[in-house]
Parts: sequence; structure tokens; C-alpha cells
Amino acid sequence: MSYEIALIPGDGIGNTVVDASLPLLDAVGDREGITLEYTEFDWGSERYLEQGSMMPDDGVDRLRPHDAILLGAVGHPDIPDHVTLRGLMLPIRKRLNQQVCKRPSILYEGVESPLRGYEGGDIDFVVFRENTEGEYADVGGREHRGFDHELAIQSAVFTREGTETVVRAAFEAARERDGKLTNVTKSNAQAYGMVLWDEIVAELSEEYPDVEVERLLVDAAAMDFIRRPEAFDVVVASNLFGDILTDVGAIIAGSMGLAPSANLCVDGDAPSMFEPVHGSAPDIAGQGIANPLATVLSGAMLFDELGEPAAAGRLRRVVREQLADPNAPRTPDLGGDSGTEAVVADLLDRLED
Amino acid sequence: MSYEIALIPGDGIGNTVVDASLPLLDAVGDREGITLEYTEFDWGSERYLEQGSMMPDDGVDRLRPHDAILLGAVGHPDIPDHVTLRGLMLPIRKRLNQQVCKRPSILYEGVESPLRGYEGGDIDFVVFRENTEGEYADVGGREHRGFDHELAIQSAVFTREGTETVVRAAFEAARERDGKLTNVTKSNAQAYGMVLWDEIVAELSEEYPDVEVERLLVDAAAMDFIRRPEAFDVVVASNLFGDILTDVGAIIAGSMGLAPSANLCVDGDAPSMFEPVHGSAPDIAGQGIANPLATVLSGAMLFDELGEPAAAGRLRRVVREQLADPNAPRTPDLGGDSGTEAVVADLLDRLED
Ligand SMILES: CC(C)[C@H](C(=O)O)[C@@H](O)C(=O)O
Ligand SMILES: CC(C)[C@H](C(=O)O)[C@@H](O)C(=O)O
Repeated sequence: MSYEIALIPGDGIGNTVVDASLPLLDAVGDREGITLEYTEFDWGSERYLEQGSMMPDDGVDRLRPHDAILLGAVGHPDIPDHVTLRGLMLPIRKRLNQQVCKRPSILYEGVESPLRGYEGGDIDFVVFRENTEGEYADVGGREHRGFDHELAIQSAVFTREGTETVVRAAFEAARERDGKLTNVTKSNAQAYGMVLWDEIVAELSEEYPDVEVERLLVDAAAMDFIRRPEAFDVVVASNLFGDILTDVGAIIAGSMGLAPSANLCVDGDAPSMFEPVHGSAPDIAGQGIANPLATVLSGAMLFDELGEPAAAGRLRRVVREQLADPNAPRTPDLGGDSGTEAVVADLLDRLED
Repeated sequence: MSYEIALIPGDGIGNTVVDASLPLLDAVGDREGITLEYTEFDWGSERYLEQGSMMPDDGVDRLRPHDAILLGAVGHPDIPDHVTLRGLMLPIRKRLNQQVCKRPSILYEGVESPLRGYEGGDIDFVVFRENTEGEYADVGGREHRGFDHELAIQSAVFTREGTETVVRAAFEAARERDGKLTNVTKSNAQAYGMVLWDEIVAELSEEYPDVEVERLLVDAAAMDFIRRPEAFDVVVASNLFGDILTDVGAIIAGSMGLAPSANLCVDGDAPSMFEPVHGSAPDIAGQGIANPLATVLSGAMLFDELGEPAAAGRLRRVVREQLADPNAPRTPDLGGDSGTEAVVADLLDRLED
């Protein structure tokens, strides 16, 4: 099989980790009879600084014909975040209808959690985050600028369609996993959007009687990710709550450098996008020390979505093996002193034929 | 001096911890020449179940003449959270104009943090949370109920007045402390309210050149509370972000049972309200094992706001002493097996004359 992959390395360490991961994806592909054909798009902040836009006007449409997208990271110290993100990442998520963001949180053998008493294997859950609306809707405004009575309105938009899509994806995942779904909202303080969300979870739960549903308020959920992360299996949350919870989920699993993510267009009309959860990390960009594993694991999610679970399994196996090996190279975020290339070279060595 | 204190023990363990704390507040008052006159209001869920409302219609006005309010907790397993909260706690915060919520996060000597490598003394910051608007505004609605195109809008409202009030309080606190303020927003994804907020922080920072301002996105902030909590001094955040961050702040400091809070009416036109951050904990209610220390420390914040720092200091001193003493009684949330009363009795013993 051959697949067309759009690459958007983006900014900062995005370039390092995408470049470094491709040989590994190819090597795995070789062994599984899969060819990945890449088209690289040099979109991002450099382009913005030169030409005034992060990507061309028809950028999103140029991504459409591909089977999947691999994104590095977006963000530049000289450009406000809202410019870089609204110019690239957020429009792709929205306009390609990537309604479901899936982010696993796994504490691997050999990785130290910042949480006392948690060892490899103790944390293993996945967050389903609504990805195209909610608190990220571009609805709102400001009035009376500069006056004492100035105000801003920021409106979150929750559609039944958007909510059902992510909630259903989460129920399906829970059914495949341990049958437990944690629904995170803030309905005690937000009586419109969150209440609709809770109702939809309750409605869909009738179709999934085999899945046990727990409700948690977002503040309690953030706390419980620290207090009892072993209690979670599948978590479903809004765009903003998913954003916050998955950063907490990444750090309790040892490093942002290990956290992959998938932005899924579940109706299949457009490609899905895979990206590490971390950002462009300007502080370490260009030094060759960025951890490539979040991108490699995003590659595994990409293979899964292409319907190539054997390739995904191979990738995950070598990552697991490497992390469990105390003598294997590690990047500084994991307490080692190796570079990106050394980590990838070691993974390549570990690939069986 | 004599002060009129309104007591709202509320639900569940709220009763236990408020009742248990009063003798201690009185004993400290005695030593400092302070008399606290209590008026107890039996508002809460029992009242709701009997009479259909959490408090009387003129409830908020009956609180007004007091010098301060001490609240236990609100919440009942048989009543939806939004009913209990919108019937009591939230209207008090709003209608008494308690615009600033102040929540310290301190890892005391003798208390174990869930974070590896953090010991007593390593964490000491305070979060200023906007407390009467933002994402908790009661603005929004639903349309097309039950249809496929159903949607809900939940609007956050940020006024210059509300934002300036909490941001100024945070700057003032930073000036008194280590001179560092962390401003937490999500302006990259929320272009209206959060951008106004950031602008106001930038404006006010000109008045506080001695305070260093750091900006963090809320997802990064939640992560950094786990990764580098020692880096924080004063944190300022919106109603929702403050809610989430203070739960994380409480758990990294060892227990929700230790986290106090103050809801401050900063213009002094109405009483401020002091309450433990924890909820009514129906699972342990009535067992006499609730940790009273969050309420005792809320009492210290109450003395501070009454302008009685010596009394506040005494209370904090005995709490610190008790926690540092490995032989002192502790409630189960701190790994001990003592009850509420034993903890308070021990604190009373520790009070010097
Ligand atoms: C960069 C930012 C807009 C983005 C988000 O909030 O979605 C990031 O934090 C993420 O989680 O992918
Ligand atoms: C109970 C709830 C409405 C409340 C809040 O979100 O403000 C609580 O979590 C708190 O932090 O005081």
C-alpha cells in the first residue's frame, strides 16, 4: 500500500522532530509493505515573517487530497501565539473537520513520573477532546474600549453534532478498552453548554450499557489526574478542558516529549492530522536535542488511522523497548544527554526484520 | 474589638469543620482581645429538600451587616450541583461583590506532596482568582432542543472593572511578597476576553515596575504547577482557570483538607466570605474525620481581613507546629487516623497564652 502524507514541520523543534522521524516511519513501512509518499509544506512562522501569512490562502485545500498530515509544531518568539495558531493549526483542525482529538497518556516502563509512587505501567488512559468548537469558537467581541465600562464577551459554542461526535468516539474507545468513561464538564457553574454536553453523554450512554460512566467536574478531574491517575481509562472533555487535561496528562506521564496526538476527521471526508502535543520550544530549537518520541508515537497513531496496525505496533514496540532500556540514549527532557538523531538511530537498530 | 460573623456551615462535612473550628477561633480571639459574635444560618441542602430553596429570598441581604462570613461547604448527593451552588455560594460571591478570590498553596513542613522530591517549604504561592464573572457569567442559551442542529452558547463576560480589580489585588500581593506575578490566560485560542485581560495586566504593570510579570497559557500553567511549583509566587487567573489551578494547587500541597480560601469584597461595602476549598464530601460526612485545618486556615485569612494579623499569625503558627510534629493527631486525608475533634483539641493545647 502507498499513502500520501502531507508534512508540515512548522517552527522550531517541529522541524527537528519531523525530519528525524521520517527514516523510522519509512523503515517500518518497508517491513510492512507500506510506502509513504511525502509532500512537504514549508508553512509556518518563517513564511509569516517573509510573506505575511503562515500558509497560502488555499493551504487547507492543498492538504485535502492527502491520506494524512504530520505536523511538527507551530509558534515563534517574535510573533504573538494567536497569530501563528490562528494562521495554521486551528484552521486546519476546523476546516478539515477534525472534530476529535485523541491523546493517550501512558507512563512507560523506565520513565520517571513526577508523581511519587507511580512507576512505569501505572498510568494508561486516553483523553478524547472536542477539537473544532466549544471554548475555542471564534465568537465574541469587545465594547467601550478604554472606558471604565469596557467589556469583552467570549462565547463558547457547543453543537449537538460536535458534542455527539466526540462523545461517541470516546464511548467506542471505552468499549474497546476497559469499559470506563469519565465525562468531564463544569455544569455546576456553566449552565448552558456543559449541561447540553452532560445530556448528550447521558443519551449516548443508553447505547453503550457496557460502558460505565463517571462524571467529574474539571477542577476535580485535574486534581484526580494527580491524585489517582490509575483510575482513568477513557476521558472525554471539551476543547479547552481537553487542552488543560492533556497537558497535565502528558506531564504526569514523565515528559511533554513523549505525548502524541491525533486530530481525527472521523467522517473520513478529509485527512486527519497527527502532531506531538509539545510546542516549538524556541529555547532548545536548532540544538538537536528535542525528543523525537512524541512525533514517533504520533506516527504510530497515523499508521493506526491508515488501517495499518502492524506498522503502528512495531513503532510502539521499539519505543517501549528503548524507554525500558537504562542504557539506551535519552534526550535531556528524560534526564539523558543524547540528541534527537541518536535516539532515532537506536530505534532503527531495534527494528526487527 | 468585637466582630459580627455570619456562619453558614452548609452541607456534609461543612458542619463538622465549622463547628470544630469555632472554639479555636474563640480561644485565639480571647488571647488577642477579640470577641467574635456568631450568627448561624442553617442554609443549605436540607433546607432545599424541606422548603425548596437553599436560602431565603433575602438571604444575601441578611449577610450584609456582618463583618465577615465563614462558610463550610455546599453540595448534596441528591441535588444537582448547579442547584446547590446557584442557590447559595455563587449568588453570595456575586451579590456581595466578592470580586477577588485568594487561595494560598503552601506545602507545610511535615506534609507529603504527591510530587516526587518536594518537601515542606518547597511550595509557597498564592492564586488570585477573578470571582464574580468570566466563564461563570450566567449568559448563554440553547436552541433547537433535540434536533440535530441543536446548539448551546455559553458566554464568558470580562469587564475592565472586574479584571482590573483582581489584577490589581494580585500586583499588590506580589509587591508584598517576592515581586513576581504570573498571568495565566489562553489568549492564543480565545481572542476576546483573554486578550482584554492580557492588555489590562500590561497596563497595570506600568504602575508596578517592581513586579516582574510572566505570562503563561493555562495548559502550560497547570503543567508547571506539577513540574516547577517552586517557580510561582503570585498567580492571577480568570474565574474558571483559577478554579482549576487552585484545585491543582491544593493537591500538590498535600491535601484538599489544608486549602483555605477568601472571597474578598475589596471595596469593603459588603462582608468577605471565607471557606475551605474542599466540598461537602458526602462520602465521609458525619464520621467526624474531616480535616478542620482548611477551615482553621480560612479563619486565619478572616482575621487578616478584619485587620487582626496577630490573631491570624497565632492560628497559622499552631497549624504549622502541629503539621511539623510527627506525633500530632492527623486526619485520614493526611495519612493519620485521628478525628476532627482530636486535631482541634491538639491545636488548642498548642496555643500559648
Ligand atoms: C497551541 C494551542 C492553540 C493548542 C491548543 O490549545 O489546542 C495546544 O495547546 C494544543 O493542545 O494542541
Ligand atoms: C463548587 C464550585 C461552583 C466552586 C467553583 O467552581 O467556584 C468550587 O469548585 C470552588 O472552587 O470554590
